[in-house]
Amino acid sequence: MRKVYVIGIGAGDPDQLTVQAVKALRRVDVFFLLDKGAEKSDLIALRHEILRRHAGESAGGRGYRLVEVRDPERERAADGAGYPGTVDDWRSRRAALYERAIIDELSDGDGPDGTEGPDLDRTGAFLVWGDPSLYDSTLPILDEILARGSVRFEYEVIPGISSVSALAARHRVTLTRVGRPVQITTGRRLAEGWPGGVDDVVVMLDAHESFRHQLAADPVIHWGAYVGTDDEILVSGRLSEVADRIGELRSEARARKGWIMDTYLLRRDPGPSGGSPRDRP
Amino acid sequence: MRKVYVIGIGAGDPDQLTVQAVKALRRVDVFFLLDKGAEKSDLIALRHEILRRHAGESAGGRGYRLVEVRDPERERAADGAGYPGTVDDWRSRRAALYERAIIDELSDGDGPDGTEGPDLDRTGAFLVWGDPSLYDSTLPILDEILARGSVRFEYEVIPGISSVSALAARHRVTLTRVGRPVQITTGRRLAEGWPGGVDDVVVMLDAHESFRHQLAADPVIHWGAYVGTDDEILVSGRLSEVADRIGELRSEARARKGWIMDTYLLRRDPGPSGGSPRDRP
Repeated sequence: MRKVYVIGIGAGDPDQLTVQAVKALRRVDVFFLLDKGAEKSDLIALRHEILRRHAGESAGGRGYRLVEVRDPERERAADGAGYPGTVDDWRSRRAALYERAIIDELSDGDGPDGTEGPDLDRTGAFLVWGDPSLYDSTLPILDEILARGSVRFEYEVIPGISSVSALAARHRVTLTRVGRPVQITTGRRLAEGWPGGVDDVVVMLDAHESFRHQLAADPVIHWGAYVGTDDEILVSGRLSEVADRIGELRSEARARKGWIMDTYLLRRDPGPSGGSPRDRP
Repeated sequence: MRKVYVIGIGAGDPDQLTVQAVKALRRVDVFFLLDKGAEKSDLIALRHEILRRHAGESAGGRGYRLVEVRDPERERAADGAGYPGTVDDWRSRRAALYERAIIDELSDGDGPDGTEGPDLDRTGAFLVWGDPSLYDSTLPILDEILARGSVRFEYEVIPGISSVSALAARHRVTLTRVGRPVQITTGRRLAEGWPGGVDDVVVMLDAHESFRHQLAADPVIHWGAYVGTDDEILVSGRLSEVADRIGELRSEARARKGWIMDTYLLRRDPGPSGGSPRDRP
């Protein structure tokens, strides 16, 4: 039986892999690497560094192959209306590519006569930045492939340090205050308004500095880019006081590196319970 | 200068520590262990196993001391009203205990004549189950100690695999659907009603099976107890079909082990985008 691992590899620091992830890396024959284009070559280099450090034969691994899968072009809708549908199409195309790669590159372990072949690659892996449970499409895509029924495989998920946990750790803040909820959402959603029922909001996938829509509420923001890497930038403070600085740092870093990966926590009306003293100006 | 690490040690599987956490464990002179009473002796044993495996001298560590800090009795309010205030009192008492332990057990590194003493314990650590950013009081307590000003120390947070990430990985589900938010909240809050603005809710700290309040909405539930340990129990399904079974498993496990640690994801009205096929009956 083919086996596929989905491995969370943390938010950017190669040491943020778990021991469990390292052990899984060393069992893998074939890593399926998604080619997302040159603009994120830093991330590709970092992934190779993780493999070299943790999965290579010198690191106790048994050797592996890399298979590049070219990502289908994703058509971004101009407004939010068509977004989920667009994603579904794109996901189905990606599922077809993954399915092909699994069929072509992994063996189900049986030789032509039904006996087990000794030298066949049975174990593949997809590496996911952060944790596979947050805004990542790998699990739904694998489910879609299994639902199509043309190839069978077992799969296992290894959790990773999410960019959210990494952000909170670097700012030394909690996401939750005593007995209170936190919402994790997208920049697109935040631009539509502050979410109901929560005072603590984590924002991911924000390409448009949507925090600027919340200047009137003036929450505390804990912002971070490239968290855990040598390029890490952290800013905390009242949004009204730091929004422009974050905007400048963002533009500058994006221009210099060609891409940016940032996340932030917005904390409104910090009360006496659970807010850290740093959150109370 | 004294140094204090707050180290996320994952949700129960000793292999869920990150390489970063293992490296930090090996730099620690004194581990401050909170004695929460005999009912969680399994967890104490598991913590000792983590230290033995990753921080002991045989594992490349430099040897360490354990200092037990007895937790102040926490008065639980009968209803939600007084809860945050109760927690504040309890937290201040805990801060006083931690402050005392840091002063007594860690040295600021200066000998009587101002030179560095060679054999002084400068580095302490608090170990936190899961990730320190979710419903854990260690960071606010350390901030409170620093705000009091009677002892100075640096502190650093090492993120961990949260019970939420571990749960999602074991169920092979994502917490978020495409472009949609997820809320992390408490059993107490869920008992007050389904949170506004979200269809995906993660519930922690639920001592009273609050999911039963959501039987009318009949979401899909992905429930797990002791996730990542040998005692792990997982149940998924329509809430109306599995709620009683979860209740029975919970009661039985709690009676057998004396304690339970469980978490769940509730997913309402899974749409075509992002919900896994398993979520669509």
